[in-house]
Amino acid sequence: MYIIVPSSSSMKLTSSLASKLNAEIANVTRKRFPDGEMYVRIETDLKDRDVIVLGNTSHDSDLIEYLLLLNAAYEEKPATLNAVIPYFGYARQHMRYNPGEPVSSKVFTRAIENFADSIMAVEIHDEETLKFSAKPFTNVKVYDSIADYHKNHDIDYVISPDDGGYERAKSIAKYLKVDAYYIEKKRIDSRTVEMKMPDIDSRNRNILIVDDMISTGGTVIKASRILKDSGAKKIYVSAVHGVFSLNSAANIMENVDDLSVSDTIETSYSRITVSNDIKNALEKKIKV
Amino acid sequence: MYIIVPSSSSMKLTSSLASKLNAEIANVTRKRFPDGEMYVRIETDLKDRDVIVLGNTSHDSDLIEYLLLLNAAYEEKPATLNAVIPYFGYARQHMRYNPGEPVSSKVFTRAIENFADSIMAVEIHDEETLKFSAKPFTNVKVYDSIADYHKNHDIDYVISPDDGGYERAKSIAKYLKVDAYYIEKKRIDSRTVEMKMPDIDSRNRNILIVDDMISTGGTVIKASRILKDSGAKKIYVSAVHGVFSLNSAANIMENVDDLSVSDTIETSYSRITVSNDIKNALEKKIKV
Repeated sequence: MYIIVPSSSSMKLTSSLASKLNAEIANVTRKRFPDGEMYVRIETDLKDRDVIVLGNTSHDSDLIEYLLLLNAAYEEKPATLNAVIPYFGYARQHMRYNPGEPVSSKVFTRAIENFADSIMAVEIHDEETLKFSAKPFTNVKVYDSIADYHKNHDIDYVISPDDGGYERAKSIAKYLKVDAYYIEKKRIDSRTVEMKMPDIDSRNRNILIVDDMISTGGTVIKASRILKDSGAKKIYVSAVHGVFSLNSAANIMENVDDLSVSDTIETSYSRITVSNDIKNALEKKIKV
Repeated sequence: MYIIVPSSSSMKLTSSLASKLNAEIANVTRKRFPDGEMYVRIETDLKDRDVIVLGNTSHDSDLIEYLLLLNAAYEEKPATLNAVIPYFGYARQHMRYNPGEPVSSKVFTRAIENFADSIMAVEIHDEETLKFSAKPFTNVKVYDSIADYHKNHDIDYVISPDDGGYERAKSIAKYLKVDAYYIEKKRIDSRTVEMKMPDIDSRNRNILIVDDMISTGGTVIKASRILKDSGAKKIYVSAVHGVFSLNSAANIMENVDDLSVSDTIETSYSRITVSNDIKNALEKKIKV
């Protein structure tokens, strides 16, 4: 039986995953010392247990809390220590785009593998990050959970905002027994990207736009407006990670009929849980 | 010739150290992505150079900036990569005081040694942390720099607020050619500590209280009041690290005649630089 150590970024997902896995949830104390440093303590005994430390590595304090919790679990000498990271932050900097930049996802992968036996991330931005660890590192896909959310929405087409997400769109379209397309993006100059919409008849159709993450939401909003102008009936937007920079969720809601993200990042639009996908990946991992 | 990559926590110390070492200072760009993640870029070429990455590991954002800068330097393939940490945060949690706690200083030592060739900290809280790295890890003492600041203050006694700091007080007293003492602390219960002052005649004397760090400043304020009540003339207080939790600097200033800390943490009381001490330690390291 697993025991889950929850980071404060992932309290709801912890409950959901614990009930699916029939796992225990460890009690964690968190506070700040007067000098601002973080203090954590796991109040439940982890010795010889199969431990999951569940949390995100995006915001400064979440990242530090995660590393402290992972080490606190490690020092308890568990049987296995599994780092499960719903939203693996800093994964967009998985390479140096310019000299002098860090490989940010390498920094935190290496800090995590100092103590974890295995690492699991949900739909990490780029699988290059998996190569930075010598420990087993699994990337969990959540295609079926997203598709399942839309099973009664009479979706006619599934569209990816770029060719990189076409595999995701195809998987979800296959589940919904419809066709998938993607938007071609052509860079004109450093500040302009031209979008070429797929050649489909949108009139009176329900269209699902699906992506790995929504940050500023620029592409999604633009695509939705074009599809609506072409006569589309309903526009559904789903993403795994609802990052929602710059208050983008409100902007998106003005332009679409339904917005849903998963609970990798806990937002008011988290209508899809990834707990089944994590459970399946954990079971698969054990079989190997 | 060294090149120093400065973290934003240590800009003034970087200038001071660069002039002492005749070192270059690298240009660093820092920003936040819209999603809140940190971006850094070192604009100066570091290939085959002897690089120092200088910064603190205490506040959440400082810690993350430090790890990103260290990796950015590492990816440039320098000849040597020296992590120099004026104030090594999280070093008070260098052991588990209770089950379920992390060994916080191990977490960040290990994250640093993933990329650094050597580590140097200034007056780290406990030298146990040095054992967490397989790389050379030096603890730099700043006794002479503190003593030198007080050389014209006609100090009569040097007092450490506890027995742990007695070596520091003795070294500084020796430099000033006076005697050193320490305050005995006796724990009465979980909320009460009794202070036993040294048996000295304080009347009309100038007394220096010296410690490794000032956080809330409780002991220093209490000791200063007792010494003043016994007729002491002037109370000088010095510490290496001016953490100053809970606005303690202002409280201390109401109770002492002079407050000085080093520039490991940059505060308005940073009147002592540790750049000479770091320079000497770097030169010693090369000779070994």
